[in-house]
Amino acid sequence: MTISLSPGQTSISAKAAVAWGPGEPLRVETIDVALPKAGEVLIRVVASGVCHTDAFTLSGDDPEGIFPAVLGHEGGGIVEMVGEGVTSVKPGDHVIPLYTAECGECKFCLSGKTNLCQAVRETQGKGVMPDGTTRFSKDGQPIYHYMGCSTFSEYTVLPEISLARVDKAAPLEEVCLLGCGVTTGMGAVLNTAKVSKGDTVAIFGLGGIGLSAIIGARMAGASRIIGIDINESKFTLARQLGATDLVNPAQYADPIEKVIVDMTDGGVDYSFECIGNVNVMRQALECCHKGWGESVIIGVAGAGQEISTRPFQLVTGRVWKGSAFGGVKGRSELPGIVQQYLNGEFGLKEFITHTMELDAINDAFDLMHKGESIRSVIRF
Amino acid sequence: MTISLSPGQTSISAKAAVAWGPGEPLRVETIDVALPKAGEVLIRVVASGVCHTDAFTLSGDDPEGIFPAVLGHEGGGIVEMVGEGVTSVKPGDHVIPLYTAECGECKFCLSGKTNLCQAVRETQGKGVMPDGTTRFSKDGQPIYHYMGCSTFSEYTVLPEISLARVDKAAPLEEVCLLGCGVTTGMGAVLNTAKVSKGDTVAIFGLGGIGLSAIIGARMAGASRIIGIDINESKFTLARQLGATDLVNPAQYADPIEKVIVDMTDGGVDYSFECIGNVNVMRQALECCHKGWGESVIIGVAGAGQEISTRPFQLVTGRVWKGSAFGGVKGRSELPGIVQQYLNGEFGLKEFITHTMELDAINDAFDLMHKGESIRSVIRF
Repeated sequence: MTISLSPGQTSISAKAAVAWGPGEPLRVETIDVALPKAGEVLIRVVASGVCHTDAFTLSGDDPEGIFPAVLGHEGGGIVEMVGEGVTSVKPGDHVIPLYTAECGECKFCLSGKTNLCQAVRETQGKGVMPDGTTRFSKDGQPIYHYMGCSTFSEYTVLPEISLARVDKAAPLEEVCLLGCGVTTGMGAVLNTAKVSKGDTVAIFGLGGIGLSAIIGARMAGASRIIGIDINESKFTLARQLGATDLVNPAQYADPIEKVIVDMTDGGVDYSFECIGNVNVMRQALECCHKGWGESVIIGVAGAGQEISTRPFQLVTGRVWKGSAFGGVKGRSELPGIVQQYLNGEFGLKEFITHTMELDAINDAFDLMHKGESIRSVIRF
Repeated sequence: MTISLSPGQTSISAKAAVAWGPGEPLRVETIDVALPKAGEVLIRVVASGVCHTDAFTLSGDDPEGIFPAVLGHEGGGIVEMVGEGVTSVKPGDHVIPLYTAECGECKFCLSGKTNLCQAVRETQGKGVMPDGTTRFSKDGQPIYHYMGCSTFSEYTVLPEISLARVDKAAPLEEVCLLGCGVTTGMGAVLNTAKVSKGDTVAIFGLGGIGLSAIIGARMAGASRIIGIDINESKFTLARQLGATDLVNPAQYADPIEKVIVDMTDGGVDYSFECIGNVNVMRQALECCHKGWGESVIIGVAGAGQEISTRPFQLVTGRVWKGSAFGGVKGRSELPGIVQQYLNGEFGLKEFITHTMELDAINDAFDLMHKGESIRSVIRF
């Protein structure tokens, strides 16, 4: 499907799920999407995962949440139209939207030490494009962007630097999951922690991120991959993906960090917190081996919450760090990860427990809240 | 001076400063030192620095403090006698006692990832030798060892694996400082953080450890070395050793972490906490650059105190770690550091603000409490 424009036309209509206010169900309706300005790209969204972060913002708990907005940040799409000066993608290209852009020119991109490009960070956080305005509206009322992506819309507009061009052979309704969850978990293990062959690993929380971390640990050749969750229904898939041990903390009288230390002759080489619970973050640190164990925080905690530990934990050699989008630079590295998927190095279909039309998007949130889905994917 | 023993003699007399109880001044008196057992070495102490950790334990605040004990852990001495099976040192060798042993055989030593040898850790923590007994006594009453060193005694006994043999050309009354403070600060910068040429560094607290960290940062070629202390009398020496900027937090309305972030276009590449204050540990983390800044805790906090921060600090790329004895493996690496000193790569005399006889040791503690000394060195 390609858009045909009338002379002078400055926007197109799109079916979108709009978050009008915190705690309200999304409303699927037709909105206006303005054509891309210089450095921007209009894409047709083919599929989008529904992530916990969308639910977090929708709930109103996200202090940076802005309404009304088009949520969604885990998508796959096809370029429809490019604005002035755009050179890295062209109509027809398959792309994955990036909530962490990669400009290649800022201090962060040039450091070689981080994927946290800051080029569009500030405007993105305010729900607008880099020029300070939004491309979405309904009856003239502005609707804001979300995480620079807004993939819960048939059409969306992004900065060129927020798009990874990927192989057209990759099914977008599968690789859309690489736009957030799966890359986040795998990348935290492979890029941030750099787990090596033979290392021992503990993964706290077996949702989409935790399961992806298991995949990363298996790809790294970890000798022991301990999955930890209080919901044992997650254990079957975790084992199938590569977990060697599965632990339900509720089954032990001892604190979970002691259980893991005892299981592993002193603690694991690496641990990953995939929940966003500050108490679990501490447990994840404290189950690491004295002298060298490293704990990586992936989960996003609620506003104002803090992590704590005794400094002795660090002075005796443990390292506490974090990871965002798996430390992956989207435009440079995501195309290669898509290639690894096409090569069969890891699976994605296991994560997709439900698919649905945009009209049923509120069901995806319900399934998530009930813990009945890993990922629901919206197909446009 | 060499000991001559009568047949059947099992101990020698030594002048020592004994800590009989928490908060009490040390009492200099003659004690009995038993001859070394298998794997042990008797050394004559030539010099010993007086460190804040000695004062911390003497105060009674150290929950692991044991009394009565011979304190002191920053010494230099000469081997007088070796026990059965000792092969790595012989009488006449110059040695630096190690509160972190290096057995070369435990999981920790073999890991290649840490200097925290655990071979004698447990007994050392209980104030005894690896066989569970003490070599010190007075009128038959046992007196305990301290940090495996007990250098506030004319003679002391250590496990062979707790001694670094060093070049006899090195003045023991200077290189004794490499037994703790100076190695701790320099090593945290060079080994733990691995600061590189051109990096920016913030050092919180300009006592012996902080000044040593400045030396390490200068040796690493840091482009900017920011020293931070509320006592400006420390600034002159800090500048002389290599600090490029000196900041007194009390002179600013903004929190110190913001002051440092503003001074450095987003934060430093590395920071070091050299005080033992959990609030400063947080400031040191939060003044690090988003995306890659690393903060190293060197100071030892009081019992039960905890560090806190928002996990967002880590998720956005900062790393929190710690360092003990500068990450230096004593027997393998300390001899090389002594050699660097002999080569003139760094100074030690600047640290020695006072020298005194053992009889005056309580003056050293007084000077430290008043903030009037960097290091007092006891010469036997």
